[in-house]
Amino acid sequence: MTTPAEANQNPTRQHATRQLHLNAFLMSTGHHEASWRLPESNGLAGTDVAHFQRLARIAEAGRFDSIFFADSPVLGGDVGRRPSATLEPTVLLTAIAAVTEHIGLIATASTTYNDPYNLARRFASIDHVSGGRAGWNVVTTAGDEAAKNFSQPGQLAHFSRYERASEFLDVAQKLWDSWDDDATVVDKASGVWADHDRVHAINHEGEHFQVQGALTVPRSPQGHPLIVQAGSSEDGKNFAAEHAEAVFVAHQTLQDAQAFYADLKQRTRDLGRDPESIKILPGIVPIIAATEAEARLLEQQLEDLIQPEFARQRLASLLGRSPASLPLDEQLPADLPHEDAIEGAKSRYTLVVELARREHLTVRQLIGRLGGGRGHLVAVGTATQIADTIQTWFESKAADGFNIMPAVLPSGLQTFVEQVLPILRARGLFRTEYAGSTLREHYGLPRPQSRFAVERSLLGASA
Amino acid sequence: MTTPAEANQNPTRQHATRQLHLNAFLMSTGHHEASWRLPESNGLAGTDVAHFQRLARIAEAGRFDSIFFADSPVLGGDVGRRPSATLEPTVLLTAIAAVTEHIGLIATASTTYNDPYNLARRFASIDHVSGGRAGWNVVTTAGDEAAKNFSQPGQLAHFSRYERASEFLDVAQKLWDSWDDDATVVDKASGVWADHDRVHAINHEGEHFQVQGALTVPRSPQGHPLIVQAGSSEDGKNFAAEHAEAVFVAHQTLQDAQAFYADLKQRTRDLGRDPESIKILPGIVPIIAATEAEARLLEQQLEDLIQPEFARQRLASLLGRSPASLPLDEQLPADLPHEDAIEGAKSRYTLVVELARREHLTVRQLIGRLGGGRGHLVAVGTATQIADTIQTWFESKAADGFNIMPAVLPSGLQTFVEQVLPILRARGLFRTEYAGSTLREHYGLPRPQSRFAVERSLLGASA
Repeated sequence: MTTPAEANQNPTRQHATRQLHLNAFLMSTGHHEASWRLPESNGLAGTDVAHFQRLARIAEAGRFDSIFFADSPVLGGDVGRRPSATLEPTVLLTAIAAVTEHIGLIATASTTYNDPYNLARRFASIDHVSGGRAGWNVVTTAGDEAAKNFSQPGQLAHFSRYERASEFLDVAQKLWDSWDDDATVVDKASGVWADHDRVHAINHEGEHFQVQGALTVPRSPQGHPLIVQAGSSEDGKNFAAEHAEAVFVAHQTLQDAQAFYADLKQRTRDLGRDPESIKILPGIVPIIAATEAEARLLEQQLEDLIQPEFARQRLASLLGRSPASLPLDEQLPADLPHEDAIEGAKSRYTLVVELARREHLTVRQLIGRLGGGRGHLVAVGTATQIADTIQTWFESKAADGFNIMPAVLPSGLQTFVEQVLPILRARGLFRTEYAGSTLREHYGLPRPQSRFAVERSLLGASA
Repeated sequence: MTTPAEANQNPTRQHATRQLHLNAFLMSTGHHEASWRLPESNGLAGTDVAHFQRLARIAEAGRFDSIFFADSPVLGGDVGRRPSATLEPTVLLTAIAAVTEHIGLIATASTTYNDPYNLARRFASIDHVSGGRAGWNVVTTAGDEAAKNFSQPGQLAHFSRYERASEFLDVAQKLWDSWDDDATVVDKASGVWADHDRVHAINHEGEHFQVQGALTVPRSPQGHPLIVQAGSSEDGKNFAAEHAEAVFVAHQTLQDAQAFYADLKQRTRDLGRDPESIKILPGIVPIIAATEAEARLLEQQLEDLIQPEFARQRLASLLGRSPASLPLDEQLPADLPHEDAIEGAKSRYTLVVELARREHLTVRQLIGRLGGGRGHLVAVGTATQIADTIQTWFESKAADGFNIMPAVLPSGLQTFVEQVLPILRARGLFRTEYAGSTLREHYGLPRPQSRFAVERSLLGASA
C-alpha cells in the first residue's frame, strides 16, 4: 500500500499525457526456470486452463494493458528438467477471453510455420470473440528443430524468414481489410445481406504467397489485431520499425535500453511513422519482498534450485557450442563469433555474450543470471525499489512501459498488483481504471483504416 | 411435454443397451438459407459469440452429445444474398468450452489446408481446455476457390486429397500419442519434471509429411479428440471405415440411409474394427409446429423467402454447370455426368441429382427442397411426428443417432429440446442426464491407448 510519504517522494503528476503501459507475460509456474520446484507451485499448471484464467483475472484486476503468451511449435528445452509443455496459445487466449472483459490478449504465432489465410482468420476471430482485445506477436521462429516438425530439413536463413514475415503480414492485413466496416447491410426486406462492393478479393500475388481472398470473417472490432514484435536483431528492428505497434525487448542496463529506444523510435520516424505509434516494453522480472535482503534471499532460494547441467545445455544451444566446451567455473570462450554468423535468435545471443563479458561472469554465474529471466532484467528489492526502477526507465526514455515477467506465478503477479501498482498510481504513472474497451485503446493506438475503404473514398473525392 | 398416452404408444424400453446420439449442428441463424430474413433472426449472429454460447447452453440443457460447426477456409456462396461470414470454428468452440461443462465440441478442419503439427496441437489444446470434449470433423475441402487462398492454382484431385488426409491423420494421432499418459512425473525434490522415456519423437517419414515431434502438448484427457467424418463418396466411405468414430451423412430416404448404414458398418467390420465403434448420424432438419399443417406453413414461409437466382447459382456451382443451363421451370439436364467425373463434393452431387430425378423436380422445386437442408432430410410436422421419424430410422438401422440441423436458430433448437426430447425420453431412447464427462463417453466410445505406450508394454511382456 502507498503511504503519503512515498507519494511525496515523487510528487510530480506531470504524466497526464504519457501513460505507462504494462503487459503481463504469463508462463505456467513463472519465468524463473526453477519456479516449478517451489512447494507453492502447481507443476501441471501449463495444461491447466483454470490456472491461466486466474492469472488473467489478477492482471485484469490490476488494470494491466494486456497479457501475453509466448510460443514455439516445437517441444523446447529438456522436458526431463523443466515444464516445457504448453497449450497452443491462441486456444488459451480464447478460453481466457470468455472469462474476462477488458484485458488485452496477445499471443505469439509464427510466420514461418503458418499460412496467412488461416492465421489472419484466427486472429480476426479472436478479435471478434473478445470484443477487440486480440494482439499478435509476430515471430519467425528460430531453429532447425521447429523446421523438422513441418516437413523441412532445417530452418530458413534469418533474412529469408523476415522477408517471408513481411509479406505474410502484408497478406494478413489485406485480408483483415477485405471487408469494409460497413459491408454487412442485413436488409431483410430486399434480401441483401452484404454489399458486394464492400467485400474485396485481395488478389495478392507475391513471392511467397498468392492469396485470392476475401477473408471469411468480417472486419473485426479493432480493424487489425495489435501487431507486436520481439526480435531486436537488425532484421528484427527494421521489421519492428515498419510494422510493430508494441515491441517486447530484453535489456540488462538502462544505457542499452535507452540506446535501443532512441534507435527504434528514429527508425520508425525515418519510415514516416509517428514514433508514438510504437510502444517499447522491456522485460522485467520483479522479485519483491519487504526488504531488499529478503528479496535477495528469495532470489537465492530460486537460484539454488537451478540444475546447472541442464541450464548449461540450454546455454550451449543458444551459443551453438557443445556443453563440454563451457566449463562451469570458467568464463565464456574468447572465440565466440559475432551475431552476424548466427542464424538463430541473434539479439538474444549478443545480449547473453555481452552480459557475460561485461561482468566477467563464469558460466555458472551466467546461468544463475539467466535462470530468472532468460536475459531480461531481474529487479530484486522492495516494491518501492521496483517502482523506482520502472519510473526511472520510463522517464529516461528507455521504455514506454514494461513486460512484467513474474519469477513465480501466481504469487509474483499478485504481489506486483498489490504492492507495486499502488505506488505507480500514487505517482500518477499508471491508470486506475480502463479508459477504453479495446487493446488498441489501452495502448493509446489508433484503429487502422481499411486500405480498400480508403481507396474508395479517394476515388470518390476525385470524381 | 410427454403424456402417458404418448409413452404408451411406444412402451418398449428395450434400448438400455443402444443409446440414441444427438449432435446439434449450429449455423448462425439456422440451416434454412432464408432464415436470416425472418423478423426473429439476428442477421449478424455469425460473428456474435454470445449467440453461439447461448445455442450451446440450450443444447447442453437438452443433454445433446455434442455441438458441431462446419467450416471451409474460403468465403463461399454469395455474401450479397446470405450470411456467409463465419468465425474460425476452433476459436468459437474454445469460447464455448469456457462457458459449458458437459457438451462435446466438434469442429471441421481441413487436412488439405492445414499442417498436422499445428492442427494436432490445437485440437489437443482444446481437449485440455474443455476437459476432454473436443472432436475433429476431418475434411479434405473441395473446390478451386479454397486452393486460391493457399497459394495453389487449383484443388488437388479427390483421391489425392484423401491420400493426404489419411497420412495427415496418422501424423496427428502419432503426435497425440507422443506423450504417454503418465509422462509428467513432477518430482520437485529430484528436479525431474517429465520422464524422458515416456516422451517420444515420432520421426514420421511419409510421402506428404516428415514430422519429428514430440508434440508440445501432453496427452489430452481423451487421448485423441473424437474423429468425425462427413463425406460419403467411395474415398470418403473408405476413409470413414478406417478412421472415423462418428459420421455425418445426408440422406433423403430411409432406404438410402439403411443401405449406407449397412455398407459402412460392413466396411468397418472388414477392416477388423468393431462396427459399434463408428456412430452414423444422418442430418435432419426439423420444422416443428402444433399441427402438421402449421409446420407446412412455417416451411412455406421460409421457402417464399428463398431468392431463386441466388439459389440457382449455388446449384449450378455444385453441378459444374452455368446457371443459364438450368432453366428454373425445367428438370435437370439429362446429360449430367456420373460422380466419378466430379472432383468436388462427390456424394452431395449424386444425392442432389438422384433427388431431382426420383421426384421429377423442376430446378425451382429442387431449389426449394435444398433450401432447408442442402440435401439433408427435412422433417416437417408435430413433435411426435419428428420423434417417430427419429425412432423409426434409429430402430431400423438407418442411424445410430442424428445430426440435428434446426432450420431457424435459436428457436428451432429450443423447440426441439422442449418438445421432441421429452418424447424420446419417455420412449426410453435418449438420456436424461450425462453419464460421463468426455465426448467419447457421451458417444460410448473408448479412450484410445497410446501406440507408443502399447509398444512399451509389449516389450515389457516379452522381456
